[in-house]
Amino acid sequence: MATINLNFGRLCNCYLFSEVSRRLKVFTEQHPHCELHRLDRSQNTQPLPPSVVRTLHETTARMSQAGCFGDYGHYQGEAFLREAIARCYRDRGIGLDLDEIFVNDGAKSDIGSIQSIFGPKDVVAVQDPTFAAYVDTNVMAGRAESHNAVTCQYAGISYMPCHERNDFFPEPPREKVDLIYLCCPNNPTGATATREQLEQFVRYANALGAIIIYDAGYAAFVSDPSLPKSIYEIEGAEQCAIEINSLSNSAAFTSLRLGWTIVPKALSLEDASAGQLNALWHRRQSAMFNGPSIIAQYCAAQALSPAGRVECQSIVDNTLENARIIREGLESAGILCYGGVNSPYVWTKAPDGMTSMNFFSKLLAEANVVSLPGAGFGPNGEGYVRLSAFECRESIRIAMSNIHAKMAA
Amino acid sequence: MATINLNFGRLCNCYLFSEVSRRLKVFTEQHPHCELHRLDRSQNTQPLPPSVVRTLHETTARMSQAGCFGDYGHYQGEAFLREAIARCYRDRGIGLDLDEIFVNDGAKSDIGSIQSIFGPKDVVAVQDPTFAAYVDTNVMAGRAESHNAVTCQYAGISYMPCHERNDFFPEPPREKVDLIYLCCPNNPTGATATREQLEQFVRYANALGAIIIYDAGYAAFVSDPSLPKSIYEIEGAEQCAIEINSLSNSAAFTSLRLGWTIVPKALSLEDASAGQLNALWHRRQSAMFNGPSIIAQYCAAQALSPAGRVECQSIVDNTLENARIIREGLESAGILCYGGVNSPYVWTKAPDGMTSMNFFSKLLAEANVVSLPGAGFGPNGEGYVRLSAFECRESIRIAMSNIHAKMAA
Repeated sequence: MATINLNFGRLCNCYLFSEVSRRLKVFTEQHPHCELHRLDRSQNTQPLPPSVVRTLHETTARMSQAGCFGDYGHYQGEAFLREAIARCYRDRGIGLDLDEIFVNDGAKSDIGSIQSIFGPKDVVAVQDPTFAAYVDTNVMAGRAESHNAVTCQYAGISYMPCHERNDFFPEPPREKVDLIYLCCPNNPTGATATREQLEQFVRYANALGAIIIYDAGYAAFVSDPSLPKSIYEIEGAEQCAIEINSLSNSAAFTSLRLGWTIVPKALSLEDASAGQLNALWHRRQSAMFNGPSIIAQYCAAQALSPAGRVECQSIVDNTLENARIIREGLESAGILCYGGVNSPYVWTKAPDGMTSMNFFSKLLAEANVVSLPGAGFGPNGEGYVRLSAFECRESIRIAMSNIHAKMAA
Repeated sequence: MATINLNFGRLCNCYLFSEVSRRLKVFTEQHPHCELHRLDRSQNTQPLPPSVVRTLHETTARMSQAGCFGDYGHYQGEAFLREAIARCYRDRGIGLDLDEIFVNDGAKSDIGSIQSIFGPKDVVAVQDPTFAAYVDTNVMAGRAESHNAVTCQYAGISYMPCHERNDFFPEPPREKVDLIYLCCPNNPTGATATREQLEQFVRYANALGAIIIYDAGYAAFVSDPSLPKSIYEIEGAEQCAIEINSLSNSAAFTSLRLGWTIVPKALSLEDASAGQLNALWHRRQSAMFNGPSIIAQYCAAQALSPAGRVECQSIVDNTLENARIIREGLESAGILCYGGVNSPYVWTKAPDGMTSMNFFSKLLAEANVVSLPGAGFGPNGEGYVRLSAFECRESIRIAMSNIHAKMAA
């Protein structure tokens, strides 16, 4: 008699995002002709860079001929692509061997499965608020106990509060934890860490033998040159950190699915010598993954080439300009906001102590703007909504003009 | 202090395939000008179907425009593609709801992770010989104990022998097992199951509450109309079977990465009501997967359209014709072989009681043919090599002519 994985039964069904969908559906039914401004998006809507489009056409042409493709290729990704990734790191002074780079299908899969190489009793720490998948995948793996029905927080998980008083980036936990997920720049707060803040985490991890799982999926938006774009810019991070990245937003690769995971050979633990965690992840990938689409790998190598990087920077700059328009629009309406400088997300404070869900409804009803209520990302997200700069410029301009007209104090 | 998943330490490092690589390397170094015939391939080398190439160009053109793509899309895959998949099943008399279909990135990922929705103590059964990933992924999840260093078989896993006496398709286990992996048509033996053989397994599973994980990745090669192409052609299978399929070989999609997993809502277990396993897999996918590349999904819908299916059939027919040439070549040299009729794999018996590794070396040295020694797939593979029909026609013809010239009795 087969049985089910009972850990799944511990998963909290966060009511909040289904309530968001329900309210959105009701509004759309009641206002069928209303043009909505989707500032709830988590994905880039810009076209692929022109040189990537050319690569895609050329690769397609080759795929119409016999014998050109067909091999699954290397489980870690093609060497030419890993070389292109290593070159980008080298430009920031970070040396990586090719076997430390694992090409993935766009970060989310690896963010979810990287925990599988660690022990089932390891204690996990996450930012609050944060992206739900860090916690959910660990709950499925048995690293959490019961949850609080109101906050959706789990016993057994360590939450690191992010709020105005710490500029939305946490201190390392006071208690001992084993696996620390950091999303930086953060989704949803848009906050990014200073060098000193990351140094604190690296010191903590190296002192206690913890591993940092660093989600750098929004690193391309870091435009302040004094801020790190990779955790490996911090001394000692190669001994304690795994970094996961993606081209989804920086190169508009959402529909191609490509990213990478760095598992340094210098990582070591009391029960794992240097190189062993790298070997475990290689073993996991070779059993459970066949590498991403070869055509996406050719496109990614183009996006990471010198010419491609110039084009990608203009995608990033366009998004950051959108974020600036959102910030200025909110400020001119007297609404307080954070983030949106080195990040596509503007963390917007609900006025007058309103809940994030009520502010969501007010933005929708009065300005036809769709946001994401911060409380859905954790208790410290209560009182905020996330506005995203991925919507197209014209829609963002109208959204801000609506907010100004209807909501300015 | 983070720890490692100790289950990984139980994994057997099968010496055999590294010995194959070593011997191949030595041979190539000693004979640098020798043209090798790669009948060890597990992947299609034919070009994409012409209408899929057109779709790929058209989709690329759309991706160069703003606002066309950008959304991650549905975790289960786009509805238009799931409709195309459902239509293919409907043509074989199988009714599926769209929420029973989960689009994946080419079968291997789901073959590896489907076990994660089941209990950690569930007992796994696999064919012997078989594809290593079924066992390896369960070893990593803790469902096996120590292994035998010679056979690479694990205590705690139930092996179902496949040999000449049962036409290389096993009977259900005598003991009680919980999760049964069936690869059909089989890799490496090329054997496929009759309706009666599958009925036996479905009866076993429904009687004991076991779940069949049916890898139908080579189903497109089943050309005998009396043989099932899907386990759901067997009555009662929707209550006990999950089916995983891929376009890698049938549509030459190796470099695009696309397949699907069917988790019927009728599946139930003592501790899981109907629909619950489907919901668990949906929960797993939504936390750990973002769907495959959207462009691959458009291409897949084209490959599964009526026009696309005609083109795919010609890819399949071409591979089956290659298999026929291999079978006839071997037979004319007095070498016994199986499979290769409803399968791209020809299971070739080493003459004179030779080991599969020695026969591998003999084929390489005398006919310049690269094969895969059957012992690498399990003890019942000893004495056989797997020859694959995925190599190009010309190379296969030369391979057979070499075998005839050098090895005919």
